[in-house]
Amino acid sequence: MSRNLIGPELQRVIDLIGKLPGLGPRSARRVALYLLKRRDALLIPLAEALSDAAGKITRCSVCGTYDTVDPCTVCSTPGRDQSVICVVQDVPDLWALERAGSYRGQYHILGGVLSALDGVGPEKLNLDSLVQRSAQPEVKEIILALSATVDGQTTAHYISDRLEHLDVRISRLAQGLPVGGELDHLDDGTLTAAMMSRRGLD
Amino acid sequence: MSRNLIGPELQRVIDLIGKLPGLGPRSARRVALYLLKRRDALLIPLAEALSDAAGKITRCSVCGTYDTVDPCTVCSTPGRDQSVICVVQDVPDLWALERAGSYRGQYHILGGVLSALDGVGPEKLNLDSLVQRSAQPEVKEIILALSATVDGQTTAHYISDRLEHLDVRISRLAQGLPVGGELDHLDDGTLTAAMMSRRGLD
Ligand SMILES: [Zn+2]
Ligand SMILES: [Zn+2]
Repeated sequence: MSRNLIGPELQRVIDLIGKLPGLGPRSARRVALYLLKRRDALLIPLAEALSDAAGKITRCSVCGTYDTVDPCTVCSTPGRDQSVICVVQDVPDLWALERAGSYRGQYHILGGVLSALDGVGPEKLNLDSLVQRSAQPEVKEIILALSATVDGQTTAHYISDRLEHLDVRISRLAQGLPVGGELDHLDDGTLTAAMMSRRGLD
Repeated sequence: MSRNLIGPELQRVIDLIGKLPGLGPRSARRVALYLLKRRDALLIPLAEALSDAAGKITRCSVCGTYDTVDPCTVCSTPGRDQSVICVVQDVPDLWALERAGSYRGQYHILGGVLSALDGVGPEKLNLDSLVQRSAQPEVKEIILALSATVDGQTTAHYISDRLEHLDVRISRLAQGLPVGGELDHLDDGTLTAAMMSRRGLD
């Protein structure tokens, strides 16, 4: 009865919002209603912004982040250090490191970490392109800026093995990463400390 | 730096999502990224569904709920009892009562409750139209199905005063409403019990 009552257009909005992370069916109904009540101020602008983003934002073919230009703003900034690539799990980690402002090299977005539990194997990660990039003569160091979780550190060791044959220094963030902590949750000072005191992988 | 890095299109999506209830800046970034990663499966469908909803869904000029037709599906269903109007705080309360399935009369959406703290006075509620509807000769009973909160009960008494001069019975949901409980959180059985044992306002 509720489904008929709500109508297919609103039901579709509720169903799609309910697929977003952290939003269950009840909060999806609340969000949908909140949008309907703010049709001109929020509903229409959000519809347009999402459509605009879908049309313009693409993945950077070099590092894998999202931007409206390819290569992305970071990859195409002339002053940045070309000799070092910082490998992160996902885009918010790049954003967090850029907010911290202590790093001025290149990035590489893995798109995840290896996880037996979640069924994430090496083939699901952006790894082949990392090996290719790491083999370029100007690249001297790869920083594995992965979370201090079991999966993050497993992934760091796996990447280290994959790059072993190359003439690059492999380091990881060290001091400051709380055990079990996720990179994206850390404050700028902690991230900067971890970046400064990075050390070679054992 | 982070704002320049993200780009205006994505920043706009993040800002708008951050205005939704229950979503802070951090979860807005997570949701935006989740959408970008599911461009065809979620981002584009959601943009279209929101645009579609904005174009088609309107408020019912009779009861105030949302629907694609005006009068809404509930108001225009022929079999429903025309002699009773159930007054609810907001649209999800109508949905909850329809899910419970124990009520087959008319509805009236107030759009809020009186609240000194939140600065909600009578002029912000859908009250004038309630008084007009209640004055129609076929209307015999007004059920005040408001939450058992201080604001809800204050509003019930205010409405009761406004309708005092009319020849209608005014009742409210009674048994089953836990003190401080919000209508939208109750299970169907509790709602049905409360509806069945409604009683005249003191
Ligand atoms: Zn890039
Ligand atoms: Zn209606």
